[in-house]
Amino acid sequence: MKKIAIIGLGIIGGSICAALTKAGYAVDGADIDETVVGYALGKGYIRGKAEDISVYDVVFVAAPPRATINILDSYSFKNGAIVCDICGVKQEMERVVYSRARNYRYVGLHPMAGKETSGIASASADLFAMANLVIVLAEHTDEEALNEVKSYAKAMRFGKIVECSAEEHDKKIALTSQLAHVVSNAYVKSPQVADCDGFTGGSFQDMTRIAGVDEDMWTELYFHNRAYLLTELDGLITNLEKYKSALINEDENAFKDALKEGRLIREKIKFKKK
Amino acid sequence: MKKIAIIGLGIIGGSICAALTKAGYAVDGADIDETVVGYALGKGYIRGKAEDISVYDVVFVAAPPRATINILDSYSFKNGAIVCDICGVKQEMERVVYSRARNYRYVGLHPMAGKETSGIASASADLFAMANLVIVLAEHTDEEALNEVKSYAKAMRFGKIVECSAEEHDKKIALTSQLAHVVSNAYVKSPQVADCDGFTGGSFQDMTRIAGVDEDMWTELYFHNRAYLLTELDGLITNLEKYKSALINEDENAFKDALKEGRLIREKIKFKKK
Repeated sequence: MKKIAIIGLGIIGGSICAALTKAGYAVDGADIDETVVGYALGKGYIRGKAEDISVYDVVFVAAPPRATINILDSYSFKNGAIVCDICGVKQEMERVVYSRARNYRYVGLHPMAGKETSGIASASADLFAMANLVIVLAEHTDEEALNEVKSYAKAMRFGKIVECSAEEHDKKIALTSQLAHVVSNAYVKSPQVADCDGFTGGSFQDMTRIAGVDEDMWTELYFHNRAYLLTELDGLITNLEKYKSALINEDENAFKDALKEGRLIREKIKFKKK
Repeated sequence: MKKIAIIGLGIIGGSICAALTKAGYAVDGADIDETVVGYALGKGYIRGKAEDISVYDVVFVAAPPRATINILDSYSFKNGAIVCDICGVKQEMERVVYSRARNYRYVGLHPMAGKETSGIASASADLFAMANLVIVLAEHTDEEALNEVKSYAKAMRFGKIVECSAEEHDKKIALTSQLAHVVSNAYVKSPQVADCDGFTGGSFQDMTRIAGVDEDMWTELYFHNRAYLLTELDGLITNLEKYKSALINEDENAFKDALKEGRLIREKIKFKKK
């Protein structure tokens, strides 16, 4: 049986442990915080503590970007081991991994799942059920490793699995994840926010759910993907300026046209209920 | 038993019918579309069709802003009838209602509930369960009428009920509802949106859920609340520009500070799960 380790037991790493364990795999876990390892053991998410990473056949690195880069670049892995990361930016990861010959086989993953809370207490075996998974491929990607990773993804009950280049991933994620967190974080800065209790419905709750981002981790992610995020942010501001101009000019038709444009686009997006 | 009518059987009007009927009240309904009335009858949401509005003790007007204004201003109501609207803007409604002496008692309502879909097919007896309800009061508001309306609100299973002036309502709603719909509508305009299937998670889904607004109704709402919406939209753009500047200037600390500011505010907002 393959020996599997997860490094970093936050919401994602903890959920990988829980989901694989539930699917019948024996997994070990490591974290810089020993209490987190103890929690994972207590919950039955892991079989044991992963000490020497070089004995594992499969390693999932579920740490923030800089820590992930450090691990991918400097840890000793078993010859031929499959090593996956789950970082939200991929071009930078590939740059590091493929900067020199490696004795391991890298497969980049980005589970499109999460919550507005973090840490192992938010982890669950069901976090990935029906969620999208992006697998990032390069010319260096080992076919056999890829297929094995897909079997783990299925065991974790991911829904749709898409494969793409790191560049495509980073470009799309700038819109689908990164910009959303920026907007939510900005949205709550209205001076009115403190006095809105009782005046909110689902739209406000959706808009502000993910505002409380960990600024250290997200700043890392954003600056590894600066150009693409800037393009999306600039595009959104440009679009918002159009509604603003219509309001200033008291131009109801221009406003209506702007709304209609968005509605027609929205009607074409597949909307998946989770 | 009080005779109750609902004019306008969309998602909100239809849900008022369904909720009050479920609570044991006998309600009649009217709509410009006869098939909608037939649907409501078939579903058991209403007892009968409301023909002559002047026979009803209580009337809920659940129509778009301009239609609501027309109804409040020109329909014949029973002397002393309680008449409520559910419009998303209230200063304009009060201006119309209180422009001259009325033989009815007006109480403005704004149920903070809805869906990304509209029409009676989206209505349900449970739409308001645990939702916030804003009741708008003026010096003219009749105390007895207010208390009776609150009893209906409880029958409809609203959660928190807040009372405020039309001005306060319009100002807060500009942030909690109106701006959210603008942002969502703008968000989907990224050229990348069409190719994002498989790359989305909950944050993208939340951000784009309400993008498909009915541009006619929402433009009416927005332009009845132009100044407050403009303030909120301008404030959001100003805040978004800060992240943009930090990206352009490659200033990670400024970006981190901007995120931290939002996180600290977010942590103070009561977050109600629906």
